[in-house]
Amino acid sequence: MPTNMISKFLEKSVVLPLDAAPIHVKTTGGGPRTSVLRNPNMEKLQKGYLFPEISIKHEAHLKKYPDAKVISLGIGDTTEPIPSVITSAMAEYVLALSTPEGYQGYGPEQGQMNLRKVIAEKVYQDMGIKESEVFISDGAQCDIARLQTLFGPNVTIAVQDPTFPGYVDNGVIVGQTGSADEAGKYAGIAYMRCAPENHFFPDLSRVPRTDVIFFCSPNNPTGHAASAAQLRDLVDFARRNGSIIVFDTAYAWYVSEGQGQGKPRSIYEVPGAREVAIEISSFSKFAGFTGVRLGWAVVPDELRYADGSRVARDFDRIVCTCFNGASSVAQAGGLACLSTEEGRDAVRRVVGVYKDNARVLVDTFASLGKEVYGGTDSPYVWVRFPGRRSWDVFAEILEKTHVITVPGSGFGPGGEGFIRVSAFNSRDRVLEAAARLKKFLA
Amino acid sequence: MPTNMISKFLEKSVVLPLDAAPIHVKTTGGGPRTSVLRNPNMEKLQKGYLFPEISIKHEAHLKKYPDAKVISLGIGDTTEPIPSVITSAMAEYVLALSTPEGYQGYGPEQGQMNLRKVIAEKVYQDMGIKESEVFISDGAQCDIARLQTLFGPNVTIAVQDPTFPGYVDNGVIVGQTGSADEAGKYAGIAYMRCAPENHFFPDLSRVPRTDVIFFCSPNNPTGHAASAAQLRDLVDFARRNGSIIVFDTAYAWYVSEGQGQGKPRSIYEVPGAREVAIEISSFSKFAGFTGVRLGWAVVPDELRYADGSRVARDFDRIVCTCFNGASSVAQAGGLACLSTEEGRDAVRRVVGVYKDNARVLVDTFASLGKEVYGGTDSPYVWVRFPGRRSWDVFAEILEKTHVITVPGSGFGPGGEGFIRVSAFNSRDRVLEAAARLKKFLA
Repeated sequence: MPTNMISKFLEKSVVLPLDAAPIHVKTTGGGPRTSVLRNPNMEKLQKGYLFPEISIKHEAHLKKYPDAKVISLGIGDTTEPIPSVITSAMAEYVLALSTPEGYQGYGPEQGQMNLRKVIAEKVYQDMGIKESEVFISDGAQCDIARLQTLFGPNVTIAVQDPTFPGYVDNGVIVGQTGSADEAGKYAGIAYMRCAPENHFFPDLSRVPRTDVIFFCSPNNPTGHAASAAQLRDLVDFARRNGSIIVFDTAYAWYVSEGQGQGKPRSIYEVPGAREVAIEISSFSKFAGFTGVRLGWAVVPDELRYADGSRVARDFDRIVCTCFNGASSVAQAGGLACLSTEEGRDAVRRVVGVYKDNARVLVDTFASLGKEVYGGTDSPYVWVRFPGRRSWDVFAEILEKTHVITVPGSGFGPGGEGFIRVSAFNSRDRVLEAAARLKKFLA
Repeated sequence: MPTNMISKFLEKSVVLPLDAAPIHVKTTGGGPRTSVLRNPNMEKLQKGYLFPEISIKHEAHLKKYPDAKVISLGIGDTTEPIPSVITSAMAEYVLALSTPEGYQGYGPEQGQMNLRKVIAEKVYQDMGIKESEVFISDGAQCDIARLQTLFGPNVTIAVQDPTFPGYVDNGVIVGQTGSADEAGKYAGIAYMRCAPENHFFPDLSRVPRTDVIFFCSPNNPTGHAASAAQLRDLVDFARRNGSIIVFDTAYAWYVSEGQGQGKPRSIYEVPGAREVAIEISSFSKFAGFTGVRLGWAVVPDELRYADGSRVARDFDRIVCTCFNGASSVAQAGGLACLSTEEGRDAVRRVVGVYKDNARVLVDTFASLGKEVYGGTDSPYVWVRFPGRRSWDVFAEILEKTHVITVPGSGFGPGGEGFIRVSAFNSRDRVLEAAARLKKFLA
C-alpha cells in the first residue's frame, strides 16, 4: 500500500541531521535511546504476567520433549465448541454487514441496548438491575483495567489472597501501590487471606478499611463460592467502611443449584449491595467466548463517591474515552446466548461438560489422599502440597506427566503450596491426565 | 439464572445492620454515598466527550423536529457495506467455532501471528517492520488509552491543535496534566497549532520539548496529510529531543497516490523513525470495521526508554494485563481484508466511494466561496467560518438544514471557527446534504 517514495533513503544505521544539537537520542552503550523515563509503575511489576510465563515454560518443555503429548490443565481456556444457536446468529449478523440494510458502524460505546436489556432481565432477574446500569465490555479482564483507571492512583484496595492477579497488576500499573516485598506482596494493598483454615473467606475483623475491595466468587483459583451469609458480611463490611466492592462473577454459571445451599451468583442478591457494589462478568467461561471477547459490568445508579457524584457517570466517560464498545459480532452472539431458552440450555450443557471434568479431577486427587478443594461450584480444582513450593510442584508434574497446571503462588502469596488444576479440556484428555496423575502421585 | 434464595430480603430502602458503627455509607443529603474520593483526574475532564455530546444534541433536535430527515455528516462512522470477501471469511470462521476442529479459545494477547505477519508485509512493505513488532488491537482509540497507561502520569505530551481529542483526554485521565484553562487548554500539554497559516504543520522551533508527541496524519479533523519533508522534520525534532512520537495513521488509506507528491502513509517511510516512533492504525475507516473493532500498533524493537529498556517489552505487558486480544472473529476479517489482492481491491473501492463524497463536499463549500481544506487525502472536509464560534455554526447548520456536522472547537482550541464535515455517508445523502447546504449558505 505505501507509496514508499522515500524508502530508498532508509538506512539501518542511525541517521542524524548534521546541524542537530544537542543529540538526545544517545547512540552509546547499547544503541540509541530516547530521553523518556520508563513509567516507574511498570518497573514495580513483578516478573512476567502469570499465563505468558507458563506459556514460556510450556514451550521449553516441548523443546526438551518434542514427542511428549502435553495436556494443558493450566490456563482457564475453554475447549468445547460454541453451541451452533450462537454461532449461527453471529454468522447471520456478519453476512448482513455486506448488505446496505444490515450494515452497522459504531454501536453505542456502552453496548447494544437489546443486549444490555437481556442481561438485566435474564441474569439479574428480580434484582432490580436496569438495562442502563449494564455496560457491555470485551471481557472482565479489560473491565478490571478500566475500573482501575477509573479509580486512579489515590485509592487503596483489598484483594483476596489468592485470587486472579489482574486486580493487583492493574492497580500497580495505575500507581496504587508501592514496591513488592520478598513474599510478593505490594506495599499499600490489603491481602485478605482465603485458605481452608478460614473456609476461604477472610476474617473481616482483621481486614483494614480500603476504598475498593476486589472480590471474586466463585474465586479463581480456589474454586470457592461464597455463601449468602458470607456475602452479607462482605456487603455490611463495605457499608460500614464506605468502601466500593468490585464483585467478579466470571464463574457464576458454575455455581451448583439447589442442595439447600443457594450460593448467590450475584452480589445484588444481597440487601444493600446496590449502594456499594459494582459487578463484572464475562461470556468467556460459560459460552466459550474466550476468543470472541464479550463481558459486562454493572454500575448501579445508587453507587456514589464521597462527594455524592455518581460512579456510573465517570465509568461511562471511561468507556467512551478509553474504549469504543465490544465487537458488534460478539454482541450478536451474546444476544443469541441469553435471549432464548435454546441458547441458555445450550450453554448450560457446555458448563455441565466442564463440571463433570472437574469432578473427575477432584476424585483423582481425593483418591490419592490429597487435600483438594473447589471443583463443585467452579471449573477449578485447588490442591494442596504441604511444605512444597508451587512452582516446584508445577515443574515436577510437568516433567513427570506432561500435564500443565498453574502454580498457586501465581495468584498471590497465599497460594503458595497449592496448584490450580483446570477442568477446561476434552473429557478424553482429562481422563488421560487423571490416569497419569494417579500413576505419578501414587 | 440466579437462585435468588435471599432475594426476598431485598428492599428498596437502605438496610443497615443494627450493630454496625460507624456508618460510613452516609444517608443524609441526597442519599447514601461511599467514603471513596472521586479520582481527581476525572474531575479535570471537560464536559462530555465530543461525540456523545453531539448525539445528545442530535436527539434533542429530533424531539424538536420529529419529521426532519436528519443527515449525519458528523461522527466519522462508516456507512458502506463491508465487502463480502471479508464477511464471508468471518462467517466461515464463526461457524467453525461450533466444530471440535474449528474451535479456538484465547488467542495470543498480541494477536494472531498470521495477521501480524500480513500487516508487516502488506502495510509496511519494504519498511523493515517485523511481525513481532505488530500488536493487534480493538482499534486505535483503545491503543491510545493503553499507550497513555503505558507512559504513565509523569510524561509530558504534545498534540496537534486541532486533533482527535482522545490523546488529550486519555492523558488527563492518567494524570499527565493540570486543569484546563478557559480556552480549554490543559496545563502541562504542548498544543502545536496546525492552521492554514502554517500549512497545517507546527512551527517546531516554537514547540517545547516533550516526552511524547502525538501526531495524526492525515489529521483528524483538518484532513491534512503531512508531506515527506514535514515528517522528516518531525522525526529529526523527536530525535534531537529524545522524544517518542505516537503516529496515528487511521486515515492512511485515504492519502491520494502519485501526483508527484507521494505523501507518506507511515512514519516508518522516514529515515530514523524506528528509534523514536510508535505507529497506531485501524481497520475502522478503510474496511468499515467501526463496529467490528480491529486495529494495530507498531512498537519497533529499537525504541528505548532513557534507561535503555525496550518500550515494546512494557507495551507487551500492558497488552497482556489490561487487554486480552481483539476478537478472533474480527481478526479473521482483518486477515481476509489484507491477505488477498481481492480483499485489498475491495476495500480500495470502498475508500473511493467516500473520497468521491469528500470531493462533492469540497466542491460545495468552494462554490460558496468558503475557505475549505482537507477532503483530498482524507474523508474529512474542514471549513472555516471566520469570526464565528464552532458550536454556533454547528447549531445553525443543524437548525436550518438538519445536517449534523462537528464543531471544530471539539478538537482543541485551534479548531475554533471551523466545522468538520464527514464524507462517511451514502452518495444520495451527501448529494442531498450538499443541496441543502448550498441553499442555506448561499
